Amino acid sequence: MAEMRKPGALCKMQRLSTDAQNLTSSIAAKTSNIDEFACIEKYIRPLMRSGFSTENDDAGKISSPNGSFIVTQDILVEGTHFLRHSNPTLLAKKALRVNLSDLAAMGAQPYGYMLGMSLPQGVTEEWWEQFSNGLREDNKNYNVNLIGGDTTSNNTGTITISITAMGVPGMQSMTRSQAKVGDFLYVSGNIGDATLGLMAYQDLIGGEYFALKRRYDLPEPRITLGSKICGIASACIDISDGLVQDIGHICRLSNVGASIHLNQIPMSDAAQDVLRRNPELIERICSGGDDYELAFTSAESNHTKIMHIAADLGVKVTTIGVIVRQPGVEVYDGKNIVHFTSHGYSHKF
Amino acid sequence: MAEMRKPGALCKMQRLSTDAQNLTSSIAAKTSNIDEFACIEKYIRPLMRSGFSTENDDAGKISSPNGSFIVTQDILVEGTHFLRHSNPTLLAKKALRVNLSDLAAMGAQPYGYMLGMSLPQGVTEEWWEQFSNGLREDNKNYNVNLIGGDTTSNNTGTITISITAMGVPGMQSMTRSQAKVGDFLYVSGNIGDATLGLMAYQDLIGGEYFALKRRYDLPEPRITLGSKICGIASACIDISDGLVQDIGHICRLSNVGASIHLNQIPMSDAAQDVLRRNPELIERICSGGDDYELAFTSAESNHTKIMHIAADLGVKVTTIGVIVRQPGVEVYDGKNIVHFTSHGYSHKF
Repeated sequence: MAEMRKPGALCKMQRLSTDAQNLTSSIAAKTSNIDEFACIEKYIRPLMRSGFSTENDDAGKISSPNGSFIVTQDILVEGTHFLRHSNPTLLAKKALRVNLSDLAAMGAQPYGYMLGMSLPQGVTEEWWEQFSNGLREDNKNYNVNLIGGDTTSNNTGTITISITAMGVPGMQSMTRSQAKVGDFLYVSGNIGDATLGLMAYQDLIGGEYFALKRRYDLPEPRITLGSKICGIASACIDISDGLVQDIGHICRLSNVGASIHLNQIPMSDAAQDVLRRNPELIERICSGGDDYELAFTSAESNHTKIMHIAADLGVKVTTIGVIVRQPGVEVYDGKNIVHFTSHGYSHKF
Repeated sequence: MAEMRKPGALCKMQRLSTDAQNLTSSIAAKTSNIDEFACIEKYIRPLMRSGFSTENDDAGKISSPNGSFIVTQDILVEGTHFLRHSNPTLLAKKALRVNLSDLAAMGAQPYGYMLGMSLPQGVTEEWWEQFSNGLREDNKNYNVNLIGGDTTSNNTGTITISITAMGVPGMQSMTRSQAKVGDFLYVSGNIGDATLGLMAYQDLIGGEYFALKRRYDLPEPRITLGSKICGIASACIDISDGLVQDIGHICRLSNVGASIHLNQIPMSDAAQDVLRRNPELIERICSGGDDYELAFTSAESNHTKIMHIAADLGVKVTTIGVIVRQPGVEVYDGKNIVHFTSHGYSHKF
């Protein structure tokens, strides 16, 4: 049964070095003899006061008598979250977009971001130029502003990028915790392309698959969709850590479960091509991260409205299942439950 | 003459590995064959729209129809900004406090922060416990909230901490750019303790000097002082990168200069003791970072008011010089200009 084994899993790690077949135990093994997730739950989460939500959401909220913002942070480490010697333009865009995707899942409009970088010695001027080109293009693409930041050099030979993005909340907030039994379960775009793209980079699926690699390199944060479904969707999350795991977060926090129909999961032509030749990769498609599509729930009565929004925006939105009373996430292939050994990556606090 | 040679110096780096005698060239040599400062100026700063200040200030501003916050970010890398195997409680506090110090220099009240960490494998539960203890204590000390964040592990063996702190601006903003000719130049607390504390850790000054080490480990952000002088000070900065360099930032951005009187620079008993035995370290005291005291300017007519504020708060505030028309920062020993070979560390963008 594909329910969440780690309800408190909270930190992203080891994306590139984990094995798709046994990801959870691999993470545990790679993070020393203690459970880092448990440590965050035990030692860090209690430091957060209520009202500054994050367990339930992709981002935190700041508010004061003079206003409020949605805030999110992602740290990307070379060799963990992106490949070594990545194209600097694509890297800049990805580092920004994974944060914008968090804002999208909250229905917030991107406003600005702080850019923190720890760079190894030997970074060239060409790297700076290409990196800045990526940011400039995406500042324009997403109408977002660089506010400031901090840059340091290091002796580790590894690029670390820490972006903190701020967004303006919509009229209504969108969380992970309000899914209701009977709600339809939707995803935007296609699922699995990014994780197969990473496998293509690692020469694990035989073939160049440029389109899949591109989807790994360059997510498309669903900002407009997130904004339009705000107030209609009962719960929303961006699929950064794997379809089953991220929907599992919605279920856990909403005290519900989900039934997903395998044959309704939207896949690109390239993903279907890979899958025809490697049927066992269906598990990877359901558990691999980095798609940065939105998964959301909404009452059946909103279905037509949601399909109209999708059509207006030209964004593919697909019903992949339904919210049920029984806890956990179950994936069905016809009438049979599919048994997976892994569900996705861990998540931030 | 002690004027700024690098007016655009923008990124903190190599704190622990640089040589006090030739810091600027050392930085250049350690950051490959390109000038990283110049790259930030050329490629990154142009990405910032006006209205999202940071060149002039310790932090950026975010505002929207529904409110505004002051935002700042600091990345601390083990072995660069703090010693390897640092006490986790002190490390947590320092990582938070250097950000709070930026807010203090803007006259902002701390509100909350995002905590990003990239941790090496092998971090123990004791480390987590002690780290969280440090944050818990300082959350209370400074009435600030953990909002959220992201944690990842790495294979570099190095701890990287990226905190983005948000503060509520005061009624008036305080920048670096409004110092006027004739203004008095003030600093809070004592200068040089932190850099001598680092030297004590490095066994470079002969003696334990626990008090100096403590000042290196644990800065005291001058939040209340920053708040009280907001509207009275014409310009303010926190001394993170060295007295002469940071005052140089005020001068450059205000189109003025500064004359500092060496014998008026406030020093602790311990620093004076070190200096008696190592008179050449006066340069290190004037150029070393990590004090996180405030340097600010104000019209002579405010002098009594400022001294009253200082007395009310129990914070030492000392007049160390005056703002002059001629650009640059000159340090006088009696009537003689002191010639330094280094001025401080580089700064963030």
